Amino acid sequence: MKPPQFKDIFEADRLLRTHARRTPLLESVLLNEKLDGRLLIKAEALQHTGSFKFRGAYTKISRIDPHIRPRGVVAYSSGNHAQGVAAAARLHGIPSVIVMPSDAPRIKIENTRAYGAEVVLYDRYSESRERLAENLAEQRNAILIRPYDDTDIIAGQGTVGLELATQARELAVSVDTLLCPCGGGGLIAGCALALQTESPSTEILAVEPEGFDDTARSLVAGKRLSNAEDAESFCDALVVPQPGELTFAINSRLVQGGLAVSDLQTAAAMAQAFHHFKLVVEPGGAVALAAVLSGKFAIQGKTVVVVCSGGNVDPTLYRQVLKKHS
Amino acid sequence: MKPPQFKDIFEADRLLRTHARRTPLLESVLLNEKLDGRLLIKAEALQHTGSFKFRGAYTKISRIDPHIRPRGVVAYSSGNHAQGVAAAARLHGIPSVIVMPSDAPRIKIENTRAYGAEVVLYDRYSESRERLAENLAEQRNAILIRPYDDTDIIAGQGTVGLELATQARELAVSVDTLLCPCGGGGLIAGCALALQTESPSTEILAVEPEGFDDTARSLVAGKRLSNAEDAESFCDALVVPQPGELTFAINSRLVQGGLAVSDLQTAAAMAQAFHHFKLVVEPGGAVALAAVLSGKFAIQGKTVVVVCSGGNVDPTLYRQVLKKHS
Repeated sequence: MKPPQFKDIFEADRLLRTHARRTPLLESVLLNEKLDGRLLIKAEALQHTGSFKFRGAYTKISRIDPHIRPRGVVAYSSGNHAQGVAAAARLHGIPSVIVMPSDAPRIKIENTRAYGAEVVLYDRYSESRERLAENLAEQRNAILIRPYDDTDIIAGQGTVGLELATQARELAVSVDTLLCPCGGGGLIAGCALALQTESPSTEILAVEPEGFDDTARSLVAGKRLSNAEDAESFCDALVVPQPGELTFAINSRLVQGGLAVSDLQTAAAMAQAFHHFKLVVEPGGAVALAAVLSGKFAIQGKTVVVVCSGGNVDPTLYRQVLKKHS
Repeated sequence: MKPPQFKDIFEADRLLRTHARRTPLLESVLLNEKLDGRLLIKAEALQHTGSFKFRGAYTKISRIDPHIRPRGVVAYSSGNHAQGVAAAARLHGIPSVIVMPSDAPRIKIENTRAYGAEVVLYDRYSESRERLAENLAEQRNAILIRPYDDTDIIAGQGTVGLELATQARELAVSVDTLLCPCGGGGLIAGCALALQTESPSTEILAVEPEGFDDTARSLVAGKRLSNAEDAESFCDALVVPQPGELTFAINSRLVQGGLAVSDLQTAAAMAQAFHHFKLVVEPGGAVALAAVLSGKFAIQGKTVVVVCSGGNVDPTLYRQVLKKHS
């Protein structure tokens, strides 16, 4: 598969302008003062289906040859790619089958079904979701949509970067650093490609949960490293075995480094997003914000954008987070 | 005081374009399908200080004669006008004193102080906040900023209406009905004035908490009626004794009617805003959404905008709401 270019993002942006939401850049005067810098939140939790994943999924499905598109699509996902693909498939009037772990957040499974997808649950400790999805795609003669190792998916997610660069220009600010949650690396790869052209002086950093800092370590090592098999985190959206192949090829060139945050720091950031931004952010969506609010990444004197990439969190977990951190 | 005109809103909009946030119109494919209509949420909880009140406060303070402005301002408010005035005063570099009920939500009192205001607490069952604020303004030789009965305040809040009319045009939709939370009536009066010019076919309805449906009843009676003194609601932002004078003069001409919703219906709407829009909405901010989601106002076949006017809710209350309604 050929790696995406800037023009792919540009074209995805043109496509999505009438289908995706231009999410706002939020900021808080009080928080800026406390941090002694300017913190801008790219609120992708407000995107259709509650995460940036809709961008990539819609872009990908739009670009499938219309002659074979009616066969439908198959995807595997812990939940946000699932909802993105299910919603985009529905908008294109084609069927979708989504392979999801049986312990995915309820809200993600229910919404995926509500968008009309057939959900196939699997046990993520004993089965391979890739294998399962590949077999399903073959049986159904459907098209497999991978969550990040795909040119069109990366191009779609990259529209987040293109948009935030435009919004920064509208605010007449120059972005010193972009901090981006990182699982398989599709979102940050797309954003890095967009900013390479649109804002080349912006430093780009990946933020991951502790135990899943595969991209951070891989960037240092210069090759793809895996996470320990027994690692655990409540950031379900960022739990991956290792960086993607296509995404790491981009990220190893364009991403300057990575940071890891603890689940405790992430939970505290979710509560701060409630307080300062009135934004519901899920664990995996809050890690970049956590890197700033925990002080792991100091923004003193800087203008920094963090992507809050999703907001699909079960109310029970959200209540626990608010109880503990406010 | 002369009533505001459309041109006042137009000018406020020009002023606020660089100081307030253009809040998004959100929608959910799933919810639209369930309601068999198109529901657009004007997300004013994402405004600076977490509510639309910043718009009016900033507009008002900007228009005070620069020679007397340094004397500072005094306001009374249950919390959202308080934060709006405190933040706008700070941005203008002038002092503010805010009179707030001692049982206002903690988040509102703390944020008002954080913006640098001096907060004077009073017992809302035994003291008159207007009197207290008037006396304070006289003692300090400061300017009193009323929460709704003020031309510039109404003009500032009216920019919500101007913005949503523009956004509806961008989406190429015609808005059948606007449902707006109503306390003193400043927001809906401003929106009604804006839409009278920008979208004259749009029906405009006030939504109030049960027990505080003074505007609904006053519209029917053709004169200002009061609420019962023992009425109670958890919608702290909408607890007022009766419609404003200036606001009712506008609303009695331009608002077609009013609806009342129960606290239970409002709480359910807050939980739905969490689920579908990833938006934190406070009780008073959620009544218009509650009118639609409870079925009190059916949107079948229509395009309807509801203003979610604020998001300043204490985490403890929010947790209770999520526990009960999800």
